[in-house]
Amino acid sequence: MVFTVGELAKKLGATVEGDASRTITGVAGIREAGNGDITFVADARYADAVAATKASAVVVSKTWDRSCPAPMIRVDNVEHAFTQIALWFAPPPVKPAPGVHPTAVVAAGVQLGEGVSIGPHCVLEPGVKVGARTVLFAGCYLGHGVTVGSDSRLYPHVSVREHGQIGDRTIIHNGTVIGSDGFGYAADQDGVRKKIPQIGIVVIGNDVEIGANVAIDRARFGKTQIGNGVKIDNLVQIAHNVVIGDHAVIVAQVGIAGSCHIGAHAILAGQVGVAGHLVIGDGAIVEAQSGILRDVPPKARMFGSPAWPADQAMRSHAVVMRLPELRKQVLEIGRRLAAIEKKLQQG
Amino acid sequence: MVFTVGELAKKLGATVEGDASRTITGVAGIREAGNGDITFVADARYADAVAATKASAVVVSKTWDRSCPAPMIRVDNVEHAFTQIALWFAPPPVKPAPGVHPTAVVAAGVQLGEGVSIGPHCVLEPGVKVGARTVLFAGCYLGHGVTVGSDSRLYPHVSVREHGQIGDRTIIHNGTVIGSDGFGYAADQDGVRKKIPQIGIVVIGNDVEIGANVAIDRARFGKTQIGNGVKIDNLVQIAHNVVIGDHAVIVAQVGIAGSCHIGAHAILAGQVGVAGHLVIGDGAIVEAQSGILRDVPPKARMFGSPAWPADQAMRSHAVVMRLPELRKQVLEIGRRLAAIEKKLQQG
Amino acid sequence: MVFTVGELAKKLGATVEGDASRTITGVAGIREAGNGDITFVADARYADAVAATKASAVVVSKTWDRSCPAPMIRVDNVEHAFTQIALWFAPPPVKPAPGVHPTAVVAAGVQLGEGVSIGPHCVLEPGVKVGARTVLFAGCYLGHGVTVGSDSRLYPHVSVREHGQIGDRTIIHNGTVIGSDGFGYAADQDGVRKKIPQIGIVVIGNDVEIGANVAIDRARFGKTQIGNGVKIDNLVQIAHNVVIGDHAVIVAQVGIAGSCHIGAHAILAGQVGVAGHLVIGDGAIVEAQSGILRDVPPKARMFGSPAWPADQAMRSHAVVMRLPELRKQVLEIGRRLAAIEKKLQQG
Repeated sequence: MVFTVGELAKKLGATVEGDASRTITGVAGIREAGNGDITFVADARYADAVAATKASAVVVSKTWDRSCPAPMIRVDNVEHAFTQIALWFAPPPVKPAPGVHPTAVVAAGVQLGEGVSIGPHCVLEPGVKVGARTVLFAGCYLGHGVTVGSDSRLYPHVSVREHGQIGDRTIIHNGTVIGSDGFGYAADQDGVRKKIPQIGIVVIGNDVEIGANVAIDRARFGKTQIGNGVKIDNLVQIAHNVVIGDHAVIVAQVGIAGSCHIGAHAILAGQVGVAGHLVIGDGAIVEAQSGILRDVPPKARMFGSPAWPADQAMRSHAVVMRLPELRKQVLEIGRRLAAIEKKLQQG
Repeated sequence: MVFTVGELAKKLGATVEGDASRTITGVAGIREAGNGDITFVADARYADAVAATKASAVVVSKTWDRSCPAPMIRVDNVEHAFTQIALWFAPPPVKPAPGVHPTAVVAAGVQLGEGVSIGPHCVLEPGVKVGARTVLFAGCYLGHGVTVGSDSRLYPHVSVREHGQIGDRTIIHNGTVIGSDGFGYAADQDGVRKKIPQIGIVVIGNDVEIGANVAIDRARFGKTQIGNGVKIDNLVQIAHNVVIGDHAVIVAQVGIAGSCHIGAHAILAGQVGVAGHLVIGDGAIVEAQSGILRDVPPKARMFGSPAWPADQAMRSHAVVMRLPELRKQVLEIGRRLAAIEKKLQQG
Repeated sequence: MVFTVGELAKKLGATVEGDASRTITGVAGIREAGNGDITFVADARYADAVAATKASAVVVSKTWDRSCPAPMIRVDNVEHAFTQIALWFAPPPVKPAPGVHPTAVVAAGVQLGEGVSIGPHCVLEPGVKVGARTVLFAGCYLGHGVTVGSDSRLYPHVSVREHGQIGDRTIIHNGTVIGSDGFGYAADQDGVRKKIPQIGIVVIGNDVEIGANVAIDRARFGKTQIGNGVKIDNLVQIAHNVVIGDHAVIVAQVGIAGSCHIGAHAILAGQVGVAGHLVIGDGAIVEAQSGILRDVPPKARMFGSPAWPADQAMRSHAVVMRLPELRKQVLEIGRRLAAIEKKLQQG
């Protein structure tokens, strides 16, 4: 696609400052943008990057007051406007045709809703049900009795073990595993472990998105539950019997041990670990790389490994960064004190 | 399945306190259980959750002395009894029929033991041998010369690169990769890296269980070895030439760098990292998120990043949590000392 | 393969000290080696392991002066010589035959270069182009419009979403996902998140190697870029719009949040996390498990979570390890000070 700066502004109902006739052929980030690209800036932190940009045009807010070497399109909502522009330049989205690919292996009795698309080499075991308009890309596996709602999308190589339940409008990215066995063993006196049967299931709500190469274990018994609207990033580990409340956000590489409850709207930042059997309150925020070893109250903000309230952790860390200095002060004080003690003894 | 509380107690040879006629239709955790569910409690930490439970029955130990709003089944071993109950309610386990699915691609000369089940779209390259009764679910890949023992189970999308060896009664979960190349390069003076050939193999023992989306690299030469009875959780990284002793436990998202030796019965908790070429002694325990930078003696318990003995680390962390206070004390002491020094000089 | 120690030395143009007639049947690490194995030592740290080795021969440098119970082959470059030996003992490398396996699903119009090998159950969507001699092992998925250069190698179960671009001589290991959606949502006032379209692509350079079960997200718009010669280990997370400079090294389980720029030749050690929108300078080194929360200057060496200069972090950590002692000193000083104050008041 090709537009002029003026054409883009017109489509947005926005104004241009600078040369509206420039030709735009693509979109890019502020640092990567080159000749022919349009970019955007929504944060004053990027003022230097704007000044140095090689973009042919920049989308800015109506209040942007820093210099910019390229024509500016001024809009009310930069994020929204740029998403619009990006969509105009994007290739058409991939829309797999309805139907079952001839290489898919679909057991007798499987129920497929209207408009379902089952890609090449998918395998649907007996008892599977898939709701209307749901798309399975190539190589997905749905085990015995698995149900997937309508308007959901499973990217290539997703696998769902037996009896898993997935809601409507839910997206699961490539390589993700739903319903693997939980990690549970009983050790005998020699430290030899015997597997504890993992006979529960995984239940995933509506409007959930799950990233690539995630692992969500089936319950030891009962259900591992992912609430409605939950967003899970790539390479996350969710152990058996975990319950995640509605609209929680689980960022990449987080690990949640068995039987934890994560509150609604809670946010676990990247690489966080949560020990087993804990409760994270609604709306709590856990900063990246933190390790949660105790229950977290609702709306608390935690940091550290082990984690404690983030403001305290940061104050403490500020002292840690000056510890060698503090240690010197203590040694110096000790010397001065000894000198006084000596003096007083002599006196 | 439906049972009354009394029927379940009778099957367990146990007694009921409360209404034995209640109908039970499923199992659930203490917090998730609702009407019709039976749950259990094995830890006094859950006393509050028991008091608030909505379960229709609770399995408790003979020594449980807290209040409980639901009928109780008293047993000697709660964990064991509840596992029994959960199995009675579970759907029948999935038992793939023996035979080779017509969509599987099995090279000429591959040796399959009695009762082996090879699922749809599996690929077995030349020289593969699979022992009796082993099951490969859909989409597994066994490279050239791979051997798998008997009574093992590979869930969908497991892949094993050439010459890997897997023992008997070993379970590997979905998406796990065995035998990818180790991460080894020789850098020239310009920092350009040339690949060092990774021509060893991976050897996995008997009675091992490996979680979903794990990566175990082949040796640079010789063998990466996973001992008998080792249990590995999801999303674990095991680098080239690592040796893991019998019955070790590696929890989710652990990363073990190249050529490490992990002792028998050692436990690495979640998200632990181990730097290259280290030895972790037999029976050592490394707490979650720790980073091991030195050899660990047998039976030691380590914590922290970098890790040190866990008891010292926790004592030190207790001081870290009060560091701003300690700093204030030092400043205050400095002021008092200066006042004395001034006084003494004047005197 | 079987060689005598003398035959191996002769092939290397090297000398033997000890019994050159011993038979060598394989290679192994210094600790694992047994009768019939040849091993090597390149680091004085392993002197004890050499003394205890059960290997039948050891490759050492010309300057090695520690004792060794087995015949030694002396060479200039131990690493290089041992790689040669390991290759002589290795099974022949797997070289898939050119051609398209009959079970692969290749869309009409897909362009395949000379000598390309497309394995069983691969899926190539419309618009795909694959360069000469590139190999796709079983079960790979290339989405609409994906291009892969020449002499590249995709191991089983790699999937590349639509419009991804992969260069020449690039290796991608099993289960890795290229081009999954970035993790981007706009939250409304109720904390309900709406997906922000992720319509950019992933572009991967030449001579790149990417480990197993890695996830690299497509850009929100524009490109997520992996430079030439970059080496990425297993289970790494690379978020949308990240740019990785040429010859950077990303070790296992690292997570890089959205829109970060990683400089050329930078090294991120295992399990490092980098927060969003940051710039890591060229040649910077981030130690294992560190958490980067600010831009990192070129050639800096960082450690800690949050990370700061590694030398300062280690000095500070040394004090942390003695904090309980420091605290006692402060308490003791406080007591001594109070005694003096009392004395002075009384005097």
